[in-house]
Amino acid sequence: MTEPLPEDLWPDVKPDAARRLMAAAIESFATNGYHATTTRDIANAAGMSPAALYVHFPSKAAVLSAISQSGHQQALDMIQDVVSTTSDPVEAIHLIVQKFVAWHAKRHRVARVVQYELHALPPADYAVVADLRRRTEHLVRDVITNGVGTGQFKVTDIRTAARAVLSLGIDVARWYTDTAKPSPTTLGRQYADLVLRMLSA
Amino acid sequence: MTEPLPEDLWPDVKPDAARRLMAAAIESFATNGYHATTTRDIANAAGMSPAALYVHFPSKAAVLSAISQSGHQQALDMIQDVVSTTSDPVEAIHLIVQKFVAWHAKRHRVARVVQYELHALPPADYAVVADLRRRTEHLVRDVITNGVGTGQFKVTDIRTAARAVLSLGIDVARWYTDTAKPSPTTLGRQYADLVLRMLSA
Repeated sequence: MTEPLPEDLWPDVKPDAARRLMAAAIESFATNGYHATTTRDIANAAGMSPAALYVHFPSKAAVLSAISQSGHQQALDMIQDVVSTTSDPVEAIHLIVQKFVAWHAKRHRVARVVQYELHALPPADYAVVADLRRRTEHLVRDVITNGVGTGQFKVTDIRTAARAVLSLGIDVARWYTDTAKPSPTTLGRQYADLVLRMLSA
Repeated sequence: MTEPLPEDLWPDVKPDAARRLMAAAIESFATNGYHATTTRDIANAAGMSPAALYVHFPSKAAVLSAISQSGHQQALDMIQDVVSTTSDPVEAIHLIVQKFVAWHAKRHRVARVVQYELHALPPADYAVVADLRRRTEHLVRDVITNGVGTGQFKVTDIRTAARAVLSLGIDVARWYTDTAKPSPTTLGRQYADLVLRMLSA
């Protein structure tokens, strides 16, 4: 397994065997694609039996749902955390982009599954994830709206601006690799600076 | 087949049967994923026999390569065309983003295959596509460098700025749908305005 399994990756998932299966699934999806991966592939990659997988997840789709929901929840929590920390729209957007971009670079394998496998989610799980995405996008729109209100931002279409801000972060997952430059932190800072200029009055 | 087959989609591909197979492959990849799609699926979706597919493409990977190379070549041609039309960096970037974004919105199904299935290309075909991508990115970097030279742009890191410009366009393919708003043309204009502010002195 090339992706290490750090404590902060799925802080909300217990027990450790479930987290190991999710990490193994990410490797299997990356190698074979979601549709061509079997629960056996995932169990094998985690060094477990298929029966042991079913103790934690009823299906391959359930593993995908756990990865997707956790990733989307983390993004929402991160942005909510920034919003509750500062009331300055400039500072808030800068911090949000920095953290959002850095996460997509650092966790590019996980982020690829989170961002690009939505179509494979069962309808009920898709609804949960779609709601998390809506709330995330609305938080970013609210910060931009506040900044327009204070005169710090000047934006013609808030919806398109919020989309562009999140898009820049999400697309990092597509091209970032373990050997890519600059570092996740530097890229996050550079993109945050670009975004502020994109929005600023 | 939900994607119509307009004349401008693969102007460089002949005969029509090959283009129909490429369109059918895009539908099959979108439904089942690249890895779980068979040449039989593609032939069926095109209303042809598997034997008829092999007349035009030796393998599923060859169909993918044709889609990928044509898409990347079109992007490069479009940008080269803009660069040869105007020497003003502001006008050039505005036009490039407008066209690049509009294409990824209008052709979102094709663009998804072009942008997200690179890992499935056979090594020799990947090398061709990687070269087209490098040349595309270098053209955009050159325009930004020119703009920095004339004082019209102010950019700390030209490589990161070029990446952000292309990233905004590419990521449109991920979220755009047939019912998405605004229209491809309007989105292209809005993103072009945002990018100019991102780069401008």
